[in-house]
Amino acid sequence: MPKHINPAYRRQTAKTYSLAECQRLIKSDAQVLSQLISRAESTLAADKKFLKSVYKVLHRKKDVKRIAITGAPGVGKSSFLNAYCKHLIDSGYRVAILPVDPSSYTTRGSILGDKTRMDALVGLEGVFIKPMASALALGGVAPATSAAICLCEMADYDYIFIETVGVGQSEYEVRDLVDLFILLLQPGGGDELQGIKRGIMEMADLLLITKADGELKSVAQISRDNYRSALSLFSINEWSWKPRSALFSSMTTEYLSGLDQQIEAYYAHMEQGNRLAQFRMHQEQLRFMEGQKNLLYRRLAEKKSIKERIETLSLSISSGELSHLQALNSLEELLENIDAYIP
Amino acid sequence: MPKHINPAYRRQTAKTYSLAECQRLIKSDAQVLSQLISRAESTLAADKKFLKSVYKVLHRKKDVKRIAITGAPGVGKSSFLNAYCKHLIDSGYRVAILPVDPSSYTTRGSILGDKTRMDALVGLEGVFIKPMASALALGGVAPATSAAICLCEMADYDYIFIETVGVGQSEYEVRDLVDLFILLLQPGGGDELQGIKRGIMEMADLLLITKADGELKSVAQISRDNYRSALSLFSINEWSWKPRSALFSSMTTEYLSGLDQQIEAYYAHMEQGNRLAQFRMHQEQLRFMEGQKNLLYRRLAEKKSIKERIETLSLSISSGELSHLQALNSLEELLENIDAYIP
Repeated sequence: MPKHINPAYRRQTAKTYSLAECQRLIKSDAQVLSQLISRAESTLAADKKFLKSVYKVLHRKKDVKRIAITGAPGVGKSSFLNAYCKHLIDSGYRVAILPVDPSSYTTRGSILGDKTRMDALVGLEGVFIKPMASALALGGVAPATSAAICLCEMADYDYIFIETVGVGQSEYEVRDLVDLFILLLQPGGGDELQGIKRGIMEMADLLLITKADGELKSVAQISRDNYRSALSLFSINEWSWKPRSALFSSMTTEYLSGLDQQIEAYYAHMEQGNRLAQFRMHQEQLRFMEGQKNLLYRRLAEKKSIKERIETLSLSISSGELSHLQALNSLEELLENIDAYIP
Repeated sequence: MPKHINPAYRRQTAKTYSLAECQRLIKSDAQVLSQLISRAESTLAADKKFLKSVYKVLHRKKDVKRIAITGAPGVGKSSFLNAYCKHLIDSGYRVAILPVDPSSYTTRGSILGDKTRMDALVGLEGVFIKPMASALALGGVAPATSAAICLCEMADYDYIFIETVGVGQSEYEVRDLVDLFILLLQPGGGDELQGIKRGIMEMADLLLITKADGELKSVAQISRDNYRSALSLFSINEWSWKPRSALFSSMTTEYLSGLDQQIEAYYAHMEQGNRLAQFRMHQEQLRFMEGQKNLLYRRLAEKKSIKERIETLSLSISSGELSHLQALNSLEELLENIDAYIP
């Protein structure tokens, strides 16, 4: 893990806050929240234990809006967040932004550009920005991001934005972490409705056509209308919400209150018949299913005899002595012997 | 699970072959191979046990080509397989085709169209077609597809094609099951290089521009050249292979021998310095890591006390009594008690 995303390393460079300090300072000191999120990304036992105590004593803010912002590279996600979050701050809200940084498949390197492109927000009172560590290092973005959302709620933020790069894997995970999924699209781009993007499009609650200013404004309007008629072909989702499309530009203030209204309309819809509470409950269940799977696996994987057998089998595969199917059969025999001891 | 993909149901309608029958008939009787693949997709203990004995007694053919065919809906995957596999059969090879059928995210339904569109192949001697069951039902396409590949090799097929629908998730899994990853692309489609498809493009060893006949031929040639110059910007992969692009049409025989040569060139490259053996070894390791994770998890998940606790905790989440983080903490306490008994 590169030094700058290794939580253990980062902490060496700063003081570690006590539970009492976290309790007292989490709402006022971004350093405290940042450190807690780093500890939630860590795999060290001490960090896990500390987080447990945090979850016990701190309370989550109600009425938080959890929103995903996604879109292909270059569509203007940072500019969007710059402009819209500034507007929210000016309206008196506290805003947290968590960019999720998946690693590119072939290079295993970071494909997130410059996270500090959100300059309008840096240093503003009431704004918190913290990129999440690589998905690959942690086996998916969901567990750590879900913990980070929880911590941001404990720190009293009103809006939590999860930004993803739009390459496809993390979007499916992030869909189950947020209330509202916003997809940013370029004006023009007629092929956008085709093929691979379709799966992500189908998850979106709101499509925003970006760069709707100057010469591109009329193109953006046509795109919005095209998407609108395309969306009318989609079936409503399980919460009876019909996805909408709207314009946005980060160069002008004219779309800000319109977007406020779109977001309000979504939440008003989701409050009906207790839908939001049900949706979040469903998400909690998914997180639990995922988490328990991991807990049970690690409990056995960390046993010396099993760990050693797995290493030996892995070597036998490398030497060509065993196929993975044969190695798994051998491991299963060891597990059958151990099984008798487990109550 | 719908009846037609439920292996247990399917077997009720036909006789179950014994191990001796499988050994005697697997190379000549497609019913035997088909039933073995169904049993490999099943989660029943009896099926697992039977497969173990099959893996023990049967041998895999060497010199098999494992090839993924992917591309967006409508690009012509079925027509491609129709045309190219007919050519391989005519050249004296035995060909197995395993369409992987991921489920659409929102509808949870099948998005694979008509699997029998490969009419030119149906009933031909030496061809075997069997769609794989839904990814969601089995937690990913890899474990069952990997077993199916193994069984096809035991049945003496020379070429094994894994066809995927190109929506993004299963491609990443399938990349690690095959030697050669072929991406089919439409002529034209200038946005194809943008955004979300990029990750899949980066995995491809060979891009084939389809429909290169009649009026579209010149468009296809331009597309091929565009992709060719785009590919020159990509770095070579870890096996030093530089991806290529070529034309194809299922309406004419003119591209068949060219494609033979492209595939041969790839395998010749991968035979150098033992690359193919190393690549397959790496894939075996990945399958083992994935498989052992699942084995260890299930070993504890099937214990009565743990199973019951998980169900109780899940109910507490549904009633809003516990968050998923609190539920996981409670499960961890139970596991700590059990831990002492495990040698």
